[in-house]
Amino acid sequence: MGLGTVGGGTATVLTRNADEIKNRVGRSIEIVHAAAREINEQTLFDVNSNVKLSEDAWEVVNNPDVDVVVELIGGYSPARELVLKAIENGKHVVTANKALIALHGEEIFAAANEKGVSVCYEAAVAGGIPIIKSLREGLAGNKIEWLAGIINGTGNFILTEMRDKGRDFDDVLKEAQALGYAEADPTFDVEGIDAAHKLTILASIAFGIPLQFDKTFTEGISKVTTEDVTYAEELGYRIKHLGIARRTSNGVEMRVHPTLIPEKRLIANVDGVMNAVLVQGDAVGPTLYYGAGAGAEPTASAVVADIIDVARSFEADVNNKVSALSYQPDYQTSDKVVSVDEFETAYYLRLKVDDRPGVLAEVAHIFAEQGISIEAVIQKEPEVEGSKVSLILLTQKVQEKQMNTAIEKVSSTNISDSVTKIRLEHLD
Amino acid sequence: MGLGTVGGGTATVLTRNADEIKNRVGRSIEIVHAAAREINEQTLFDVNSNVKLSEDAWEVVNNPDVDVVVELIGGYSPARELVLKAIENGKHVVTANKALIALHGEEIFAAANEKGVSVCYEAAVAGGIPIIKSLREGLAGNKIEWLAGIINGTGNFILTEMRDKGRDFDDVLKEAQALGYAEADPTFDVEGIDAAHKLTILASIAFGIPLQFDKTFTEGISKVTTEDVTYAEELGYRIKHLGIARRTSNGVEMRVHPTLIPEKRLIANVDGVMNAVLVQGDAVGPTLYYGAGAGAEPTASAVVADIIDVARSFEADVNNKVSALSYQPDYQTSDKVVSVDEFETAYYLRLKVDDRPGVLAEVAHIFAEQGISIEAVIQKEPEVEGSKVSLILLTQKVQEKQMNTAIEKVSSTNISDSVTKIRLEHLD
Repeated sequence: MGLGTVGGGTATVLTRNADEIKNRVGRSIEIVHAAAREINEQTLFDVNSNVKLSEDAWEVVNNPDVDVVVELIGGYSPARELVLKAIENGKHVVTANKALIALHGEEIFAAANEKGVSVCYEAAVAGGIPIIKSLREGLAGNKIEWLAGIINGTGNFILTEMRDKGRDFDDVLKEAQALGYAEADPTFDVEGIDAAHKLTILASIAFGIPLQFDKTFTEGISKVTTEDVTYAEELGYRIKHLGIARRTSNGVEMRVHPTLIPEKRLIANVDGVMNAVLVQGDAVGPTLYYGAGAGAEPTASAVVADIIDVARSFEADVNNKVSALSYQPDYQTSDKVVSVDEFETAYYLRLKVDDRPGVLAEVAHIFAEQGISIEAVIQKEPEVEGSKVSLILLTQKVQEKQMNTAIEKVSSTNISDSVTKIRLEHLD
Repeated sequence: MGLGTVGGGTATVLTRNADEIKNRVGRSIEIVHAAAREINEQTLFDVNSNVKLSEDAWEVVNNPDVDVVVELIGGYSPARELVLKAIENGKHVVTANKALIALHGEEIFAAANEKGVSVCYEAAVAGGIPIIKSLREGLAGNKIEWLAGIINGTGNFILTEMRDKGRDFDDVLKEAQALGYAEADPTFDVEGIDAAHKLTILASIAFGIPLQFDKTFTEGISKVTTEDVTYAEELGYRIKHLGIARRTSNGVEMRVHPTLIPEKRLIANVDGVMNAVLVQGDAVGPTLYYGAGAGAEPTASAVVADIIDVARSFEADVNNKVSALSYQPDYQTSDKVVSVDEFETAYYLRLKVDDRPGVLAEVAHIFAEQGISIEAVIQKEPEVEGSKVSLILLTQKVQEKQMNTAIEKVSSTNISDSVTKIRLEHLD
């Protein structure tokens, strides 16, 4: 259902690699029925092909010849209703729909479990990278400590261009839109909503908590300036838009925000539209998964892998398959999701201060009072005599509410009229 | 069976993460019987624990209470006989033994298939990185075009130290042995045999060819000099010991050798004992998998993941499980493995030539006659007046036999008494 970019790519890959797939699976996979909003001469499948064509997706979910329904329409509705109906009709479901899984996954998986069918969604997170499978199966012997991912290609393209070419955010965003990376309304990408959908899913698999999109903290990259990118570089860091999930003694942190990370980390060197997820397990240590996070065929690669998974264990019952979110439904944990005030992280701070003696001492004093240690400082010469100067601070790890109190104190004095705050993670 | 480094790590991870694992699997996994060459007070399991202890591994494979036999002894024999007996007794097998799978995998998988049990070996390649699963399942919709991996940590540690600190091979090897990375007999690591075992396995999964260790071309790193490492760096390349498998129009290339790769590739920045595998699929494009390739708990992570896989689909029959080498046994392809003469790759060449006019022209002429294009040249000033100088050439892609003919011609003149040849891959 859905013959757009991903639907078209999926049909292409299934057709082109049909022999290869049959040799691996031991069963043929055949497209029998496809639905697109509009069927015309441009439709991928000719009306004379063996593929039945409908403009009404309900005909697919109600077709008794269909074993596996592939939902590539996107959005919440009618995707949710179609998927639930497919399950009710006893069909397995494969979807690339991150928004659907992040918000309605619990309902969908419960229905599937009751009916004894599979719902697979590898393509929903990081496109062609098999991160769902790696986390759910490949690392299943580990207690996952944290994970951090570049899981939105558009955002990573923008930040990479800002660093490589010194271009500013608005300028690169316009290019990304022209190249077709970003939607006309780029909010989902640059404000981190798309990444938050994906992070919600990864956190559930990693920690066994229910899907809780509404508790995922989200901050976009639209306020990142080339000035900050340059200072970060000077200090040995790159700014990346990361989705981070971490198990702490207070509960689980789920957060998407611009983050300074050391440039020598492999993930700091993941550039352009590419995605990568770094996972820290208690036994395996750090592992990283890298690849294309979007695009017709990379996403199709994950969709087809899911279809193959269904086909390879087609007659196995639900008790002999991997649980959708890794943990058995009855064994999900109720670990609390911590609020932003309780996040513990290091910080990059940029202040605009008067160019007079004693300013650094005053700032340092306020931070010391709040128990915040400063790790590194850059103070620049004023560009024009008497103008404000930039003061850059890197702090040690501290609770967000302590940091906010310190920033308020700084702002309430006449030291600095604005404080730019970007979180910093060492990822070690 | 086997309570050494990996066996001990496996017992530790299974015990420490027992709750987590049970919550994911829906079944408990219990160690009921362990065998070690010598049972004494130092043995991991106390004789008073619930784990039965034997000095005879045959007692484990013949124990009717055992569902899954975990072979962590290593080597060919008695590992092969024990595994075959375990299969005959209807038990699933998990092993970390790359040598066993690379050489006797076909026999073992055939026996397992007949008996309807699983043989899992994720830990045999790249330790804790779930590369077997990713290739076999996560990328199953792709035609794999090629893969290239840093799949021996000791070799990568040595090459990293040579580059970072300008140390020579013998010096770093001694340190690696002192640190316990390399065995007293380091041949398996530095001559590429260990990597060739792993590459043989990866190539079978990727291309559906039978396991053919004897046809894998293997060249070690013991002849790599700091001089070559430095020249490579100057030209924008790093030298890595890669295992490369590639599908070409002539057949499948399987080769392990020192390789120059562009420093801007992510895999060129995988340093120290870490491993990484880069896989190029026709749909997904390039994907990379990074992590610890050895060590007690990283390897245990893969062993436990396999045990969990077996447990999660415990009652499913063999027709509803993934085939051991991805392809169904009846559908393996008979693509020929190409010989080293037919390899197609670019080259780095280092010649020692007289410091006189016209030498470069003579060399260029010989290569041109063989149809070999030169991409880059470095010619150094002589260190001592009148002494030989180093002439470095990077060539375009050419067949190995053409290159060897050209090198013979150069050597047969009085231009250069020795030619150092290192293969170069752009990995794009």
